[in-house]
Amino acid sequence: MTASDTGNPAAILEEARHRGGATLDEHQSKRLLACFGVPVVREAVAADPKAAARVAAELGFPAVLKAWGNTLAHKTEVSGVVLDLRSPAEVETAGARLLRIPGTEGLLVQDQVQGNRELVAGLTRKPGFGPCVMFGVGGILTELVADAVFRIAPLSENDAAAMIADIRLVEMLGPFRGQAAVDTEALARILMSLGEIGLRYPEVAQIDINPIKVRPDGTLVAVDALVVRRDAAGVDDKPPQARPAAGSLAPFFSPESVAIVGASAVPGKPGHEVVRNILANGYEGRLYLVNPQGGEILGLPVHASLASLPETPDLAVVIVPARACPGVLRECVARGIRQAVVSAGGFAEYDEGGVGLQEELEEIIRTSGIRVLGPNTAGHTSTPYRFTSGFFPLGAIRPGTVSYVSQTGNFCTHTMKRILTGEHFGVARVMGLGNAIDIDESDALEYVADDPETQAVVMYLEGFRRPRRFLEVARAARRRKPVVVLKSGSSEAGGRAALTHTASLAADDRLVDGLLRQAGVVRIRDYGELIMAGKVLTMSPLPAGNRVGFLAPSGAMLVTLTDLCGRLGLEVPTLEDHTIRRLEEISPPLIRMRNPVDIWAAASARGVEFGYREGMRALLEDPNIDAVVPILLLTGDTGVPSYEFILDLAAAHPGKPILVGFSGEQRYVDECRAFLEPRGIPTFLEIEEPFAALRILTGCRRSLTAP
Amino acid sequence: MTASDTGNPAAILEEARHRGGATLDEHQSKRLLACFGVPVVREAVAADPKAAARVAAELGFPAVLKAWGNTLAHKTEVSGVVLDLRSPAEVETAGARLLRIPGTEGLLVQDQVQGNRELVAGLTRKPGFGPCVMFGVGGILTELVADAVFRIAPLSENDAAAMIADIRLVEMLGPFRGQAAVDTEALARILMSLGEIGLRYPEVAQIDINPIKVRPDGTLVAVDALVVRRDAAGVDDKPPQARPAAGSLAPFFSPESVAIVGASAVPGKPGHEVVRNILANGYEGRLYLVNPQGGEILGLPVHASLASLPETPDLAVVIVPARACPGVLRECVARGIRQAVVSAGGFAEYDEGGVGLQEELEEIIRTSGIRVLGPNTAGHTSTPYRFTSGFFPLGAIRPGTVSYVSQTGNFCTHTMKRILTGEHFGVARVMGLGNAIDIDESDALEYVADDPETQAVVMYLEGFRRPRRFLEVARAARRRKPVVVLKSGSSEAGGRAALTHTASLAADDRLVDGLLRQAGVVRIRDYGELIMAGKVLTMSPLPAGNRVGFLAPSGAMLVTLTDLCGRLGLEVPTLEDHTIRRLEEISPPLIRMRNPVDIWAAASARGVEFGYREGMRALLEDPNIDAVVPILLLTGDTGVPSYEFILDLAAAHPGKPILVGFSGEQRYVDECRAFLEPRGIPTFLEIEEPFAALRILTGCRRSLTAP
Repeated sequence: MTASDTGNPAAILEEARHRGGATLDEHQSKRLLACFGVPVVREAVAADPKAAARVAAELGFPAVLKAWGNTLAHKTEVSGVVLDLRSPAEVETAGARLLRIPGTEGLLVQDQVQGNRELVAGLTRKPGFGPCVMFGVGGILTELVADAVFRIAPLSENDAAAMIADIRLVEMLGPFRGQAAVDTEALARILMSLGEIGLRYPEVAQIDINPIKVRPDGTLVAVDALVVRRDAAGVDDKPPQARPAAGSLAPFFSPESVAIVGASAVPGKPGHEVVRNILANGYEGRLYLVNPQGGEILGLPVHASLASLPETPDLAVVIVPARACPGVLRECVARGIRQAVVSAGGFAEYDEGGVGLQEELEEIIRTSGIRVLGPNTAGHTSTPYRFTSGFFPLGAIRPGTVSYVSQTGNFCTHTMKRILTGEHFGVARVMGLGNAIDIDESDALEYVADDPETQAVVMYLEGFRRPRRFLEVARAARRRKPVVVLKSGSSEAGGRAALTHTASLAADDRLVDGLLRQAGVVRIRDYGELIMAGKVLTMSPLPAGNRVGFLAPSGAMLVTLTDLCGRLGLEVPTLEDHTIRRLEEISPPLIRMRNPVDIWAAASARGVEFGYREGMRALLEDPNIDAVVPILLLTGDTGVPSYEFILDLAAAHPGKPILVGFSGEQRYVDECRAFLEPRGIPTFLEIEEPFAALRILTGCRRSLTAP
Repeated sequence: MTASDTGNPAAILEEARHRGGATLDEHQSKRLLACFGVPVVREAVAADPKAAARVAAELGFPAVLKAWGNTLAHKTEVSGVVLDLRSPAEVETAGARLLRIPGTEGLLVQDQVQGNRELVAGLTRKPGFGPCVMFGVGGILTELVADAVFRIAPLSENDAAAMIADIRLVEMLGPFRGQAAVDTEALARILMSLGEIGLRYPEVAQIDINPIKVRPDGTLVAVDALVVRRDAAGVDDKPPQARPAAGSLAPFFSPESVAIVGASAVPGKPGHEVVRNILANGYEGRLYLVNPQGGEILGLPVHASLASLPETPDLAVVIVPARACPGVLRECVARGIRQAVVSAGGFAEYDEGGVGLQEELEEIIRTSGIRVLGPNTAGHTSTPYRFTSGFFPLGAIRPGTVSYVSQTGNFCTHTMKRILTGEHFGVARVMGLGNAIDIDESDALEYVADDPETQAVVMYLEGFRRPRRFLEVARAARRRKPVVVLKSGSSEAGGRAALTHTASLAADDRLVDGLLRQAGVVRIRDYGELIMAGKVLTMSPLPAGNRVGFLAPSGAMLVTLTDLCGRLGLEVPTLEDHTIRRLEEISPPLIRMRNPVDIWAAASARGVEFGYREGMRALLEDPNIDAVVPILLLTGDTGVPSYEFILDLAAAHPGKPILVGFSGEQRYVDECRAFLEPRGIPTFLEIEEPFAALRILTGCRRSLTAP
């Protein structure tokens, strides 16, 4: 880049606008990037072959010559690039050929950059996400390895550093075949600059720098670049329509008074079951049942209308058919009600008519400021207030410290039933978001993040209503308490299933993945982990780190579980000498011990309880160990231990999770689970599960402390 | 390559031997490869720059010039390669510089090959594996992506084709950026040739062809190559010492008479428990207890010695301490016994003294031909013959159709206890291999593969005694019946754990992975899958293919499970129109149905049993569906179905596995499991597990029919 080529970005964009066309030409593109500190290749435009030869002589040989023109985006496809030119004569010959390519307006002469490592970086825009920065490996790898990661602009230094470390082929950035490590600080600055351009210049729709070459000394230089203008690209990244300042969600979770609009005397009907659920949970506020038919339901009087209530309730649970919902919601507004749950399905997720009904609800919300959960929601629950708006017959919901936010009704119904009947933990708040036309994933997370009754948050999401807002809320939330997210639809096929299931935004999973990583929340993949996460986040402390000590009665288990730890990112560290000595003390002579611990010999020689107790104690006392997983041997013939010792060890080491797996006889396994779990020690039927659970815990610890 | 450079391989190797040095030089290396039909770059050696310029003019420009010499293996590190030479003068200039590099004896002039895709292939040798062929992507990717796969020589055409398809970046071999697809038939021939060289010329220790360039038209050419000679590399790939022709294992599994040497009157001692186990299983042959102390044990008379037995038993179970084992084994031989199980631990897996004892046993086996299971084995079991040599108190072992071969005693003890108490399937044969000094994984597999009582085989292995033999045996076995293998120690850390656990061969996991793929068996990763595999291979038919239809009462489950199917390689196909119509018929009006099936609406509107029954029937009748997974909704409030209908559906569709998962109330889940599993329908507690199980079944089907 010669000095005369630099300029200010506004002027360069104005020049491009004036000139027209979908893109800035290659030279303009790099000039724009250079304004933001991106290191670009030394180059200049020449009008004819003779001038090109002069420029090349100035820049030095070998030189690269490229066809240059406003409409020449894909130069390599028209053989518009010649490398390795070593003399003015060669430049002239090549230049003469290039000028014959249709669309060529001049010649771009470049310094030929050494180095065989290539990177790519860029900027793209997506609705809701706004400007997003891309980074990946370049050349043939970009397409083959699909090794590209995304972050949402603006990027902090930490964001950029994490992004760089996130590519699969990160080894490529270290010292490599005698070449220096990549200057990752300079790389981070490039990525941050791309974000800055995206935020500052809305007319820049897209940027591709491909490749950024890595010189043998590790420095970087943008060799080719393309800037696409927005009026050409037709990109839309506008955030969803702004909403009026929203009220707090607190009244949903601690309503002094509630109206059930559509209360029913018919058992099995949602309008009946919701009343039964509220009574079963022992709601202590004032409950008003509303139905034009009047009468009495479950011993409670029924009011004919909202208008006839003796007070304005804090919350209305609207449990009438979809077509009646707009009218009822208007009545709520008229009565001065500020919060409503709309349970009915049959809106945008259903058919065209439903889309119209949903738009009616949205209009009422927009004009009145009433806060709405739903429609198409299975309701919400607040055990500290002994309240639920759910109509699935769950009965009394066990109080707990974990809160769930779910974009699927299923979680709040039969999965909750599974938790209540098969698990030993409870919940603080539960929200089924339904179609989320007002309260969405960001509002919900913001509420539970701030909620003193909630000690951990588990979310099931199929899309983001407001990705940028979610990023902001989640980033703040995960520093305060564990936040675990299952975002489904990562495969293409899964994505299709999501589209037909809800009226949800199907975002590219790479963007979503970038967002969740940038937010720093812990991501899970399996539906079953929703339950597992709630369980361990309720029962276990967060470990200080990811270093696990484990014991099993079998070398085969130790080996396969060590493999598993590698796949899950858990470390199986070496123990202190005195720990080893203690493990050898409790074992028969001459048995050498290590982590993981083969406890078979100790347990069979000195008793199962003694072996496990002393083995676990030794691991728990080792400063290298953050969490302990015993695979308990439970068979009648080897002797079944009393399980109390596990409680004692947990009490003595409150900062180190103990996650219990089993090998042996089913009835003792069942017995041990039934003893330990109500006492706060999580147990798992499959020996791999404690490690999957520990991955969640260690992830949450990292999230709490990450920048 | 000019015509004069070709030759016969023996002559080229003789030339290299004569010349000395660790490797063939680059030109020799390619000449050797060319003898086997490997396409190599056109090149010739020139003594001086002028001669090089002449050769280059003959070959055509651009040319490549390389320093050439016997000791110049890493040319690029000494800048010994110059590309893009475009005139005789440039060749001369470059040649003059290259000749100054120490060790340079001449100049290698090459045609410069076009194309930006690079591959690598090679030959390596490992003890037990013998010559192994490597294939991967080349250039910077070889190191970064570690994208290399191995196969054991010789390679069949199918082996080579499968190997090529096995690399992660297989997309690179298709049409790419306007360039043609790689000529994979030619590539397969190169790989087969490498195997052939390895088998035919033991003195060739190693070959690296890096890169094989892919020309834009898809043809291949080896541009650089290096052949390493064995006397230089000191590579050892000798198979383990040959053994005398081995007798059949049948007498182990159907012994007419058995001696228990070391039978004990003391309950809890292995020599006592083994007798109890044999009695508990109802062994109907003649059982002789042997102990110098004589007397009676569990009502049976005790013989003082093997010599005093009234007949020569078919099998001796030697259950004395390690130090006594060689003596007892000699007595067995003296008594004419041809089969023995040696239970004691304390051999090579334990300490130096144990190594010596083990060598004594090996010597006895070698000289006598007696077949031995163990030492350090938890024994073996044969339910068709109601016999076991296990001393872990398992009691009566449930008969079944699956056989287990395990390199860990744990499986035959407490994991077997878990199966007996927590599962509803049984076993045919079980073998704990222990230290496998005689009967190893290949012998064991060969026996069960041929065994009419065994319908499926599940193996846990930590290493291979005889990898090449295992390949041969496994390849034959998996065509006859399902063979599932858990080979642990794939991570480096896991590998270390295995080394301390058994005196096992720690082979590079990539070689092992290549071997298992070449064998065509189904590989599993988790210990828990050992049980899962036994269960589904007992209960379920093998599906015709990998196309799954599934039903769940929740869109969220459908989405996450569809994601999971993608990760597991299961297809979730589109249904026939009439299937869709039927699914819509059973649902409330206007609900659009597809695969996977959201059965919530149908089940809630028309009853859970009706919804699932008709939904499953529709899927089972669809010709696009090979297996069906219902996630059953079981809560009291939605109505618990009778489970009979699942049996009826399974009976009506005997070729399509039905794998059942659950969502709902624990007690109904337990009830349903207790009903279905004894009746042969596998059920799973976590909704992800049926899919993991189905992956095993589809893999087994593929294995049966693969070439």
